[in-house]
Amino acid sequence: MKNIRNLAILLFITLIFSFVAGCQSSTEGEASAEENEQQPILIQGPMPIEAENFAAKLEDVEEETSGNFVFYKGKVDDYPVIVMKTGKGMENTAAATAIAIEKFNPASIINQGTSGGHDPDLHVFDIVLGERTVNIGSLKTGHREDGEGIAPKEWIPMDLMASEGSAGEDPDAENIRYFEGDKELLKAAKAVKDTHEEGKVVEGTIGSADVWNNEVDRIQWFHENFGTSVEEMEGAAGAQIAKAYDVPYLGIRTLSNNKTNGGEYNPNTAEANQEYVYEVVKEYISNRK
Amino acid sequence: MKNIRNLAILLFITLIFSFVAGCQSSTEGEASAEENEQQPILIQGPMPIEAENFAAKLEDVEEETSGNFVFYKGKVDDYPVIVMKTGKGMENTAAATAIAIEKFNPASIINQGTSGGHDPDLHVFDIVLGERTVNIGSLKTGHREDGEGIAPKEWIPMDLMASEGSAGEDPDAENIRYFEGDKELLKAAKAVKDTHEEGKVVEGTIGSADVWNNEVDRIQWFHENFGTSVEEMEGAAGAQIAKAYDVPYLGIRTLSNNKTNGGEYNPNTAEANQEYVYEVVKEYISNRK
Repeated sequence: MKNIRNLAILLFITLIFSFVAGCQSSTEGEASAEENEQQPILIQGPMPIEAENFAAKLEDVEEETSGNFVFYKGKVDDYPVIVMKTGKGMENTAAATAIAIEKFNPASIINQGTSGGHDPDLHVFDIVLGERTVNIGSLKTGHREDGEGIAPKEWIPMDLMASEGSAGEDPDAENIRYFEGDKELLKAAKAVKDTHEEGKVVEGTIGSADVWNNEVDRIQWFHENFGTSVEEMEGAAGAQIAKAYDVPYLGIRTLSNNKTNGGEYNPNTAEANQEYVYEVVKEYISNRK
Repeated sequence: MKNIRNLAILLFITLIFSFVAGCQSSTEGEASAEENEQQPILIQGPMPIEAENFAAKLEDVEEETSGNFVFYKGKVDDYPVIVMKTGKGMENTAAATAIAIEKFNPASIINQGTSGGHDPDLHVFDIVLGERTVNIGSLKTGHREDGEGIAPKEWIPMDLMASEGSAGEDPDAENIRYFEGDKELLKAAKAVKDTHEEGKVVEGTIGSADVWNNEVDRIQWFHENFGTSVEEMEGAAGAQIAKAYDVPYLGIRTLSNNKTNGGEYNPNTAEANQEYVYEVVKEYISNRK
């Protein structure tokens, strides 16, 4: 009888321990698994043609949606990789980046797709690695009264992250805010440059805004004043949010056209860029292993 | 001895049940509570002066942060209300809105704060209810070659939500995208107009971009072509994301300056706006009860 009482006590203690362990794993298991080496790599593409080629390369894919965002969750070389179709523009990209960080706790984020050339030395199918990304839509105009016109070459940069106060009143906000590309991602990207045969791969500055610039003089103004290699409509939005959460980030953009040297729009660049980014991801994974 | 065995079995079964129940409540409890009529109302303010007065009015406040975002979770008239400090600009607001929707499943969102006047009939301390909100930073320039200059009055609107394809190539994307203010929120706001004694309260169009316009001719161009009453740097970003998740949304903005009629900047408008929005929230809650 004493043995049986001891058995019951032992059973009780065992159950309590398994109970606590079980509950912990059901609420914290995913987080702790994500926090070690199995944190996924996130690949962002704004348009279907900028995301679906990469998504098709994933193994064991599951699809998930949130709002207008689509996540393709799968694997590359047995490592978790999530391709996201973010939609176009700064707002969609910022929201998609925040949602993805909250949901998936990614190891790093690559924002990739097409862009328009600002540097006349770059041609359609060339690729720019974003050593820096900058919001070229964040601007403050000069003070001009009624009838004094609009002078876009006098506009100055506005840094929305300079302080929590009014950007209109704060002279510290009148600077260019560059977001640095992550060094580990850059290293992986540089290591596989020669896999991209349709054009060259260079380091540069990616400018982003909800704007489609077709005026060569304005493109040159950005190239000279912000040092932009290319423009697109997403990179700096994702970079800003990734930085707020300390998630490594890199933009990788191919030129689909270049107004400064007559390079005509070619949508096939989107697929070639994903082929290259796929090589970058494999290299990055092999470095992490 | 048989009794003790039965006792042990009973204990075992009881433990298993409490184990399962305990685990479920720890993972699903919060979500199911949010899905009923106690969904919180979310109040967004970009800068500290645009959020902290309202936050100070909340009862039973708990603070939570995510990235650079701060959430003050409390109650108004025994109803859950969350005040969010989103930071400035379109990217922060889009990300904050997405995060808040994902975390808190809000019943509705009010984006509020200060703005610059576009309509010369509006004065500092007047308030605009955003019947419509529009991204005035989303633009496509004309085609101009090297040396042909920049012609900002020829720029056209670009609708990034028109399709999933290239906004540069798609003529359907050359339209203004207005986001409609929620009718229930508007009804509550109209019902308490006379609580705002420092100025008038009108329905209008809120224009948003990461831009600080100080050129009166450009302000007039937006007023004439986009119908803007005021400009700020957040509303349309939140509206776009709220729409993607079908969450009711309204912008409420006071004029802190008006370049078109000499209205000088007054930061005290931020507090007066929060006082008014507090009345709107109380009215909205009383309608929901």
